[in-house]
Amino acid sequence: MAEKRGAYAKSSKRRQALSEATLRLVQEKGHRSVTVSEVAELAGTSEPTVFYHFPTKESLLISALKQFDDENIRGEGAEAGAIADMGHRAEVGVRRPHIPLLYAEMAGAGVDREHPANEYFQGRLARSLKVIATDIHRLQNEGAVPSGIDAEIAARLLLAAWEGLQFQWQHGPEFDIRAHLEWHIRAVLGPKALSTDPVASEGPSPTKGNP
Amino acid sequence: MAEKRGAYAKSSKRRQALSEATLRLVQEKGHRSVTVSEVAELAGTSEPTVFYHFPTKESLLISALKQFDDENIRGEGAEAGAIADMGHRAEVGVRRPHIPLLYAEMAGAGVDREHPANEYFQGRLARSLKVIATDIHRLQNEGAVPSGIDAEIAARLLLAAWEGLQFQWQHGPEFDIRAHLEWHIRAVLGPKALSTDPVASEGPSPTKGNP
Repeated sequence: MAEKRGAYAKSSKRRQALSEATLRLVQEKGHRSVTVSEVAELAGTSEPTVFYHFPTKESLLISALKQFDDENIRGEGAEAGAIADMGHRAEVGVRRPHIPLLYAEMAGAGVDREHPANEYFQGRLARSLKVIATDIHRLQNEGAVPSGIDAEIAARLLLAAWEGLQFQWQHGPEFDIRAHLEWHIRAVLGPKALSTDPVASEGPSPTKGNP
Repeated sequence: MAEKRGAYAKSSKRRQALSEATLRLVQEKGHRSVTVSEVAELAGTSEPTVFYHFPTKESLLISALKQFDDENIRGEGAEAGAIADMGHRAEVGVRRPHIPLLYAEMAGAGVDREHPANEYFQGRLARSLKVIATDIHRLQNEGAVPSGIDAEIAARLLLAAWEGLQFQWQHGPEFDIRAHLEWHIRAVLGPKALSTDPVASEGPSPTKGNP
């Protein structure tokens, strides 16, 4: 039993190393240029080992997207600040060179519920909605967002606008995605949503309390 | 000169017939199953003629999406009602069997600015934003939407949420996309945006005027 657990842990560690290596290579040169042999080399293993863990290049690329999310989506207990940070993250997100293209291509494939990318998008959606809704509840408890707003509906709308603005930015002329998203957050969650301390955000003295 | 114009008109008519035939076939069986020879047959022409007008199956599929938009996006002068109709159209849209998959796949490819789908998405974005912004201006003139709202920013946000909710619906579990989108329209444009006559929308007497 202990041995089995050991073998499982080793395999899981290997998969993790392969996902990380793939993500690094995608970020460096774009997924179309990444070869399985490069991934094997960077992870310090062989091509057959890569294919043992990930039977297709596509499954390897999906694991790289998951790895990206693990590094970028807030974990349980660390949701505070997700709303405040959203505009900034949207701006950084669209300017990343290679991840958006991989994400968009997989999104197209993932509409097909039989495609392996679909499971990735389902999981990512549930995870993102939970993080955003949790932060909305926190802001409601702090009085920065009206308690009458349905946090689950609002979370869906904030995420939808983020994805949709990203879609517009990727396909069309550039615009200020951060300003649009922050305008949107205030429209959906109320004018105080982006500042739990309205005085601090307006005045020159960030330590001053509410009047 | 007159002859040239005649040849151009004939060519343009042929292209139109091919786009329409492709769209019908995509709607019937999905783009992956459509063959160029079927398109030729339905349009009453030959395969070489199809390839003369559309050098690849991909360019034919993009022309089918344009055709779909010509049939579904409001034209100039007919923008009134675009906002009121949005929730309903979103609901019908996600339940269409084959168009969303083609749209999503092309969206993935179209992130690449060199890909022919990119031009389609640029054009569609500009066209949709214009229709929505025009209808917002109309609602502002009627007093149903506060005049302080920037119609161009609001149009971007309405379209973004629509696309983003569609994205969530396509990849994840079903939800009431119409209710979410209408909640969103009220959040962005104010509570009276979906009814220029608030009494009519609430009471049983739609002809009764404002109090």
